[in-house]
Amino acid sequence: MVKRQGKYTLRFETCPQIQGFASVAGEKESKGPLGSEFHRIIYDPRAGCPTFEQGESRFQQEALSLALEHSGHKGDELDFVFAGDLLNQCVSSSFALGAFSAPYLGQYGACSTMAQALIMSAVFVESGAANLAAAVTSSHFASAERQYRFPLDYGAVRTPTAQRTVTGSGACVVGKGNCTSLPVIEAATVGRIVDPGVTDANNMGAAMAQAAADTLLRYFEDTGEETESFDGIFTGDLGFVGSQILLELLNKEGLCIDKLHNDCGKMIFYREEQDVHAGGSGCGCAASVLCSHLLRKFVSGEYKNILFMATGALMSPTSSQQGLSIPSVAHLVKICAPR
Amino acid sequence: MVKRQGKYTLRFETCPQIQGFASVAGEKESKGPLGSEFHRIIYDPRAGCPTFEQGESRFQQEALSLALEHSGHKGDELDFVFAGDLLNQCVSSSFALGAFSAPYLGQYGACSTMAQALIMSAVFVESGAANLAAAVTSSHFASAERQYRFPLDYGAVRTPTAQRTVTGSGACVVGKGNCTSLPVIEAATVGRIVDPGVTDANNMGAAMAQAAADTLLRYFEDTGEETESFDGIFTGDLGFVGSQILLELLNKEGLCIDKLHNDCGKMIFYREEQDVHAGGSGCGCAASVLCSHLLRKFVSGEYKNILFMATGALMSPTSSQQGLSIPSVAHLVKICAPR
Repeated sequence: MVKRQGKYTLRFETCPQIQGFASVAGEKESKGPLGSEFHRIIYDPRAGCPTFEQGESRFQQEALSLALEHSGHKGDELDFVFAGDLLNQCVSSSFALGAFSAPYLGQYGACSTMAQALIMSAVFVESGAANLAAAVTSSHFASAERQYRFPLDYGAVRTPTAQRTVTGSGACVVGKGNCTSLPVIEAATVGRIVDPGVTDANNMGAAMAQAAADTLLRYFEDTGEETESFDGIFTGDLGFVGSQILLELLNKEGLCIDKLHNDCGKMIFYREEQDVHAGGSGCGCAASVLCSHLLRKFVSGEYKNILFMATGALMSPTSSQQGLSIPSVAHLVKICAPR
Repeated sequence: MVKRQGKYTLRFETCPQIQGFASVAGEKESKGPLGSEFHRIIYDPRAGCPTFEQGESRFQQEALSLALEHSGHKGDELDFVFAGDLLNQCVSSSFALGAFSAPYLGQYGACSTMAQALIMSAVFVESGAANLAAAVTSSHFASAERQYRFPLDYGAVRTPTAQRTVTGSGACVVGKGNCTSLPVIEAATVGRIVDPGVTDANNMGAAMAQAAADTLLRYFEDTGEETESFDGIFTGDLGFVGSQILLELLNKEGLCIDKLHNDCGKMIFYREEQDVHAGGSGCGCAASVLCSHLLRKFVSGEYKNILFMATGALMSPTSSQQGLSIPSVAHLVKICAPR
């Protein structure tokens, strides 16, 4: 059974385990600080396919195949796949995951989708609905740029607050398990839609920071836990601008996580050398950082306890063109070493 | 706990109850066979808003507000809202549901989203993750036409196999309950992605029929139930073309549901008089038919047991322009009178 703690937080008593995880990233990401930690680098942005969009699907397929391999399970053992991406109608996922023949439940939380899919996997495993579930997301710089902004060939100039969509994918295979070296999902807080009125789609970090603060404050209020019990609190993807705003918002509320906090959008690129402005973004950013650097540190024993909170900006190009602000959401997952 | 039956089917032992439901439809839908059964008709396609897209959000808000009212619950009692729509980045939902301040988990299953959101609600309630959850979806003829096909002003001619996107929304409030007059969710089978190779985005019924057959065959294989035990088996939205294909596919497999079957896309419009070609479609079609005609028949005592299976075509305009076929999915929910 899933238990509720406080008004918003879910606790998973049997602690669904991340039995396998994998990350796949593109060439630019391979040159960033986490380059050596991704499980596979695909240098061709089309991944051998005719289009960027199909290439992105290939990234997802690779990530899920590798995560399954690492878990020791086969695709036909998957009871459910929870997946999503940024493309219109989530086509990277639907074209990727038919290959696995598993029951499919498409998720949309923009860049928060990896945390959302992990929460779904945990609820389904904990409840008995699934013995084995997978969470997969991806994003792709080239497919996102032409959908959200301009075709690459236009050579459009980006603003300093703009984030760069990560080309990458991450996948987790979640099941009941008691392997002593693999992390478990112990709790989760689902985000509410928060809209602070930011209308600049090139400054999504500012819009999402409020949602991140809302979720994190509710988590600590519900659980009464101390920030010091965590090895780190990782958001994704507020980038440099949004991260700063988050810390300021939390400090105003008396919650200081300055020394514990990092953001997947800050971690994945060298800001100056790689000219990424406000950092990385995209469903594939938080997913590929989680499924490389962060989860590897549980396997090595360095981490015992983290919060992973992915943030999503829920606007569309149409809503932005119509002058609307950016509703945002942040979903939080507590990941721990097994007891 | 959620129980698994056979390889694919979920059974909800405490039978989460649909404590309130509501449907909101547009003017054309109000003139169809179900016109008198919708809970509210909004005649202005912009619902008093500046744009069709914002109008669609208003339809969702109205449907959820009414469903809450019917359930006797208030918005702040909702532990989770599961919602989705057809617009890019699911903006009808994200702009609609911020108003309710409930934790939000966006779902994307194209026109299958209502069944998917109901399954999520049932799993979350059954598992203890939620005391009260809501499932909401919408679609809108004008916002869908200009996104998927052409702006209305172009006066584009539609093919005979094309379906007309329904302007409407449906919402269900799901919780633990034992009201004797309200239906419960007893079982569900989640769809797999099926791609029969149809590339004509104006013939989505043909693409989705295979997915519908796949899910229905797995449900009967898992449960061993007899078709005769049902008052009806309702798909949404295969329309006239897809429905015929589904029945043929099932007959080939030895499953005859011809006398029990109807399709939300066939039920919502008068085909000839309303010039709707192959019938209705859209997340709002299955949702508004379920949350009016179908669920009302449980309240009146006419129905005891139905299968509601919403189908989705998971392509995008981009994937279709790139020449790809249409991956499809169908999610099934068994809805019963309480025991």
